[in-house]
Amino acid sequence: MKNLQLPFGVQDYMPQECYNKNLTQEKLAETFVQHGFVRVETPAIEYYNVYDEILSRAAVHKTFKMTDSDGSLLILRPDPTLQICRMAAAKLQSEGIHKVYYLENSYEYLSDPSTARSREFAQAGVELLGTSGTAGDVEIIVVAIESLLAAGLDDFLLEIGQVAYFNGLTSEAGMTENDAEMLRALVNKKDMLGVELFLHGKNVDERFVSRFLKLPTLFGGAEVLARAREGVANEKSEQALNNLQEIMEKLTALGLDRYVSIDLGLLRGDYYTGLVMKGFSGKLGVPLLDGGRYDRLGQAFGKTMPAVGFSVGIKRLLIALEKEGKLIACKTPDYAYISDGKDSAHEYAVVSDLRKKGNNVEKCFYCKKSELIAYCKQKGIRHALIFTGGKMAQTEVTK
Amino acid sequence: MKNLQLPFGVQDYMPQECYNKNLTQEKLAETFVQHGFVRVETPAIEYYNVYDEILSRAAVHKTFKMTDSDGSLLILRPDPTLQICRMAAAKLQSEGIHKVYYLENSYEYLSDPSTARSREFAQAGVELLGTSGTAGDVEIIVVAIESLLAAGLDDFLLEIGQVAYFNGLTSEAGMTENDAEMLRALVNKKDMLGVELFLHGKNVDERFVSRFLKLPTLFGGAEVLARAREGVANEKSEQALNNLQEIMEKLTALGLDRYVSIDLGLLRGDYYTGLVMKGFSGKLGVPLLDGGRYDRLGQAFGKTMPAVGFSVGIKRLLIALEKEGKLIACKTPDYAYISDGKDSAHEYAVVSDLRKKGNNVEKCFYCKKSELIAYCKQKGIRHALIFTGGKMAQTEVTK
Repeated sequence: MKNLQLPFGVQDYMPQECYNKNLTQEKLAETFVQHGFVRVETPAIEYYNVYDEILSRAAVHKTFKMTDSDGSLLILRPDPTLQICRMAAAKLQSEGIHKVYYLENSYEYLSDPSTARSREFAQAGVELLGTSGTAGDVEIIVVAIESLLAAGLDDFLLEIGQVAYFNGLTSEAGMTENDAEMLRALVNKKDMLGVELFLHGKNVDERFVSRFLKLPTLFGGAEVLARAREGVANEKSEQALNNLQEIMEKLTALGLDRYVSIDLGLLRGDYYTGLVMKGFSGKLGVPLLDGGRYDRLGQAFGKTMPAVGFSVGIKRLLIALEKEGKLIACKTPDYAYISDGKDSAHEYAVVSDLRKKGNNVEKCFYCKKSELIAYCKQKGIRHALIFTGGKMAQTEVTK
Repeated sequence: MKNLQLPFGVQDYMPQECYNKNLTQEKLAETFVQHGFVRVETPAIEYYNVYDEILSRAAVHKTFKMTDSDGSLLILRPDPTLQICRMAAAKLQSEGIHKVYYLENSYEYLSDPSTARSREFAQAGVELLGTSGTAGDVEIIVVAIESLLAAGLDDFLLEIGQVAYFNGLTSEAGMTENDAEMLRALVNKKDMLGVELFLHGKNVDERFVSRFLKLPTLFGGAEVLARAREGVANEKSEQALNNLQEIMEKLTALGLDRYVSIDLGLLRGDYYTGLVMKGFSGKLGVPLLDGGRYDRLGQAFGKTMPAVGFSVGIKRLLIALEKEGKLIACKTPDYAYISDGKDSAHEYAVVSDLRKKGNNVEKCFYCKKSELIAYCKQKGIRHALIFTGGKMAQTEVTK
């Protein structure tokens, strides 16, 4: 027998899961549209050299690569946000504000088959392009909260941080960009012993060491911000805290602060420049939403364009919804029918009329009524129709 | 300035085109669901060796290939039908009838940048698995016609053929399978001089030569079938003609025969075993729908499973719809608003209420009312809201 195995990290979506996946995607998209976002699509295949200076070395290693017929290196979409910046730089010439959303599969090349991560994963996300203020940050957080609620998720929390706070501290401490990058990775891993050893090795002043060590403790409600301000003497960090303060005040006014928690130890690398956020379900150990502000990414494609956005990992959201008991049964047809073919015109008129009235009507290829009834019972189809000798009989099917 | 070019044969879908693309896909999918089809999704990445014995040499050359971390050869989805057969063989264990549909991007590796063909193309399609009769063929043709009509296409024709008619003739003429395959390619190209020279070179009996040369003339209404029967003395070809006869009778009874034309010169290679079809718009020189019966493909994956299906090329359908003037303007939000942020709670209550009532409401990040009004005019947004000092003012925008 032929081996029909799939590569690790990819999957089929069978009808039941596929139904909930698309229903969930539609609910997210509906919220995006309600807020004025318009959909765009990007190709799954692009030239590597458009992104080579933008992707980190680690990110480059995690792209699927192919060679084109002319020897050019191609990659599979690693991140729709990068493509939307490329698209905006090349095709959205006006200096206005653009709100776009996407539903795309992204690809991560992983080499360890024992990983629980997916190598093909569906994402739904929004990008608010062209505005740099805190109002844009708030708008994106509101859309994030509303879209998760619309998808049916109850138990979730958005952790928000501010990479400029950390960046201000490393500048104030006189660290090089390279050292700051290494420190960021250690803090992100919550490896605080590593942080201490690293800072001592670099002869960083003790008052900064204690401040960096404090980072993972700076999480919770708005009260965290006062603690974070202690001893900070650089404008960048102060402005970062002002940004979070204003965001929390607005969210409190909207009654949405219960969905949000501050975490100044959240230090996304990549292209983020200000607000960063991660969304967690109370039922899931991994983030199902990811985002932040990336005001300098446009420049990498030749366009000055402040921007903020997020993406939802659809598979993770589905798992969280399943744990909350929110997945629903795939909709079955309202009617199923068999026919002896004696009067096709009559049969077609009847079923077309039922469809016009909003019913889903399935033609079955059985010969006997008993087979049709058994099929309806198994599938939960309520009405069975039998066309014989130019006449139609209807049977109501109970479970 | 950075070169932001896309590889040839792939494209961005900007908001306007993307809107029509997704609207069209939804209309097709709605028709599929009305007929009892359920959606499935397959991964874009699969092992090459699952398909190596099934894909023709030419098809293998047209797959995008990558190497996995363990050295395995991976391919990008060339054809969802192959994957659905693989899925059915591996995961749909019961012997019942399955009706599935898909919306997927497929990939074709082309090496000539001057091609007008796409290397990434969206397809919507259905597969009716597990039934071998003519009733299934008719059902699939009905779904094809209804879905194109639902998408808004008026001027189209499905050409239907029967590969078993040709196969019966080549057997009757005593040709080898290889010779039959070469002849099929020549007929498909309508290279009738090539057909004549090839058949003479193979010393095929004259009465068969004239029959093969007649193939491209065997197109039109049901009357073609009588001409095609002349001198046929093998059961396979006769059954093929009976199949088309019955299909045309049914479609006539349903009043759908005006959308269909017979073409016995339509000789799809690949995996087709019986009915074949191609859908053409009167406004487009290339087929936008493709399908047929493939009763032996399941066996290649270890499952006996007669099947019939079709797929619609979304981009081509969009071009045909555009030529018919059927594309519509991207829906714009009903409301756009600006705010001084003085009373966020009030602002949020107002816009949330509007959204609950079914309106799409866009937050704008302008400071002045005049900027908002200009934006609304440009986008065709009817209602402008201005929140200042805790109060709301509404302005109706005319073009």
